[in-house]
Amino acid sequence: MSQATITATINGVNVDRMGEMIQAVQQNPNLGTFQFRAKNRWMMGAHNCSTIQSFSAAGEEYTTRKTPFVLDSDEPPVLLGTDQGANPYEFVLHALAAGLTTSLVYHAAARGIHLESVESELEGDLDVQGFLGLSEKVRRGYKEIRVHFAIKSDAPEEQLNELMRFSPVLDIVSNPVPVSIKIDKL
Amino acid sequence: MSQATITATINGVNVDRMGEMIQAVQQNPNLGTFQFRAKNRWMMGAHNCSTIQSFSAAGEEYTTRKTPFVLDSDEPPVLLGTDQGANPYEFVLHALAAGLTTSLVYHAAARGIHLESVESELEGDLDVQGFLGLSEKVRRGYKEIRVHFAIKSDAPEEQLNELMRFSPVLDIVSNPVPVSIKIDKL
Repeated sequence: MSQATITATINGVNVDRMGEMIQAVQQNPNLGTFQFRAKNRWMMGAHNCSTIQSFSAAGEEYTTRKTPFVLDSDEPPVLLGTDQGANPYEFVLHALAAGLTTSLVYHAAARGIHLESVESELEGDLDVQGFLGLSEKVRRGYKEIRVHFAIKSDAPEEQLNELMRFSPVLDIVSNPVPVSIKIDKL
Repeated sequence: MSQATITATINGVNVDRMGEMIQAVQQNPNLGTFQFRAKNRWMMGAHNCSTIQSFSAAGEEYTTRKTPFVLDSDEPPVLLGTDQGANPYEFVLHALAAGLTTSLVYHAAARGIHLESVESELEGDLDVQGFLGLSEKVRRGYKEIRVHFAIKSDAPEEQLNELMRFSPVLDIVSNPVPVSIKIDKL
């Protein structure tokens, strides 16, 4: 009897490979260790540019990306920039939207939950008194971020919400991450 | 006597306008209140896409951006994606690099410190056991982020480090930000 190979894909995620990945990391937790990277160069004023290419998993380098992703950041004129890219705080909102969506899509796939559409709108409140150093009482970052999803799926709202909670970016934004800064003078 | 108008620009930042902005926000703190936004749409699998365009300051809408910034996020094949963009955790590193650099550039300009070049490399350690829900002991987000700057400037290293600390993104990553998530089922 010949063996048919059927690839099970839910929400565009290969659930067979996801199951294999979960099993592999369960058996050897070291396989779960990733290091992600970015290189950034200041151009002028508020304009700077990141290139993102290599990363490692379990100590192994992944060089599958032949060209880097290039990301420009700038500020709008009202914040003294030239608007050649989204600003750093807008990139945080994009990272959070992308992270919550990916978490929902993957964890739904693992549970056999089909999604038809997922859209979100995010708002973040920032008071530049903090950035300008005008008040010690005003925090420098977002005071609050509100995320509003519109989702087509048969699954109940509570479950969709739970599946998003696995998001690494939600953890990064909601909880403290240690950041070390080293400066070499050239 | 005719009056000459000289625009003072340091590090590409118009320091006259920066001084005016600081004074304006000092006199009317409400002017410091910004709201930034992102809209995201799930494409397929790990691929989703944000558009970033409007924002408000002091309750006033800014519609100066005629076209939105479009940002694709995806995962590399080893994380079951199709690599059509940097992943959400890499966008966090870019946001942090951009935020620290902009903070340094602006605050240096305000103090008359000239920068010749600013480059940075960032690394973040992420263990996907957290994302996969395999361990309650492993956090979902970055365990640690290391930032390594190479800077050409006459200012001492300690001062450069202090000037970066005004960064809103450093605050967002280092300290908890409240995130509210609302889901509408379509």
